[in-house]
Amino acid sequence: MAGDPPVFVLVRPQMGENIGAAARAMLNFGLGRLRLVDPRDGWPNERAVAMASGAAGRVLDHAGLLATVPEAIGDCAFTFATTARARDMTKPVMTPEAAMARARALAAAGHRVAVLFGPERTGLENAEISRANALISVPVNPDFPSINLAQAVLLCAYEWRRQGDSAPPERLALAGTDLAPAIEVERLGDHYEARLEEAGFFFPPTKAAGMKQNLRNLWSRMPLTRADVQTLHGILRQITRHRDSG
Amino acid sequence: MAGDPPVFVLVRPQMGENIGAAARAMLNFGLGRLRLVDPRDGWPNERAVAMASGAAGRVLDHAGLLATVPEAIGDCAFTFATTARARDMTKPVMTPEAAMARARALAAAGHRVAVLFGPERTGLENAEISRANALISVPVNPDFPSINLAQAVLLCAYEWRRQGDSAPPERLALAGTDLAPAIEVERLGDHYEARLEEAGFFFPPTKAAGMKQNLRNLWSRMPLTRADVQTLHGILRQITRHRDSG
Repeated sequence: MAGDPPVFVLVRPQMGENIGAAARAMLNFGLGRLRLVDPRDGWPNERAVAMASGAAGRVLDHAGLLATVPEAIGDCAFTFATTARARDMTKPVMTPEAAMARARALAAAGHRVAVLFGPERTGLENAEISRANALISVPVNPDFPSINLAQAVLLCAYEWRRQGDSAPPERLALAGTDLAPAIEVERLGDHYEARLEEAGFFFPPTKAAGMKQNLRNLWSRMPLTRADVQTLHGILRQITRHRDSG
Repeated sequence: MAGDPPVFVLVRPQMGENIGAAARAMLNFGLGRLRLVDPRDGWPNERAVAMASGAAGRVLDHAGLLATVPEAIGDCAFTFATTARARDMTKPVMTPEAAMARARALAAAGHRVAVLFGPERTGLENAEISRANALISVPVNPDFPSINLAQAVLLCAYEWRRQGDSAPPERLALAGTDLAPAIEVERLGDHYEARLEEAGFFFPPTKAAGMKQNLRNLWSRMPLTRADVQTLHGILRQITRHRDSG
């Protein structure tokens, strides 16, 4: 699967800061194609550039400026419209997750996809929404649903990238060391068991076997590195040496 | 699966606005438990309250104020630390998605989970990160990785809610109508076929069968509602009436 990321279309955005923040959020997740429909304060906009910082040259400078939604999506085969509230309209309503999955499938087949974002206060007009093939509704807390323009852009961009990301969901960062092989963990267990035996730790004798098993469990449950194993050997050596010389 | 949402801990946050924006982002996705470690401008903070708007009374007023990270996570069984860049530290590194899946599993088993967010400019100190059980790293564009504090909070809160959300990924919103049953679509096809037959549309005769099949395909490919079917019947009736009376 590959294909071009969707075009994000900000419709009649009011605040330049929000245009800049939207451009940043797009670039954070690798999207670069922005179109603006009739921005309130004209275009270009200094506040947008200031807020976009590094995304100014890479997103804002290439942004398309259009007069209407139909012009902005004219070359797109599928258009999503983001809406905060349900509209009295017959239309598929999708989560950002499902919408970006659809967008990826369409893009992989060579189709250009657009996502519309409405003005800060009012959202998209029904006449604009009626041009979209599907709606995107972010699953927010119904008791506090307010998310702003740049956040809606961020979440859609995040979902686009998340679904195409090849990074493993979990990995172990290793700072100049490696996971300890089992033989090293075994020897570590032997070392502790021997010294604790000498120190009379396994008492009473009837519980000794269980205590030893718990200790082996403790070592194997930890993702020990070779460095960790050396540290734990060192701790034990130092403490017994200190005790014996004390 | 159920369980309490994670506690979000803002460590030495600098700007009150960001504390307020973080509280909003949390409440947008149903999270309410915020703790603050040594906020730069003291606490309470007017700018935080102004930015939080509706989340002030529901999140900020109940926020815990602590002096250090160990105090802030003392009652938590598992702590994630968000980091923008790799640290020279041996530690599991997880995507927000994988981390919140882990958090849900822990919460469902009755364990309290914390997520640490560092100061705006510097991020968490290594001494603080060393107290966390795992790191969260948002999979951003490596050429433009800057995401701000409130955005990091938003994405983690979004992932928490997304994974527990019961909303269907796609549904068809129906504005006071219902999907048309097949018999109505069949009659619609019959109506068009009959009038188009009269109008000599199916020409040349060798292609008529294929043209009729394409037309049936067109109707069945559309998710037609009963209202749509009535509209399409009406269009045809009106056009043929107008023509016949013209």
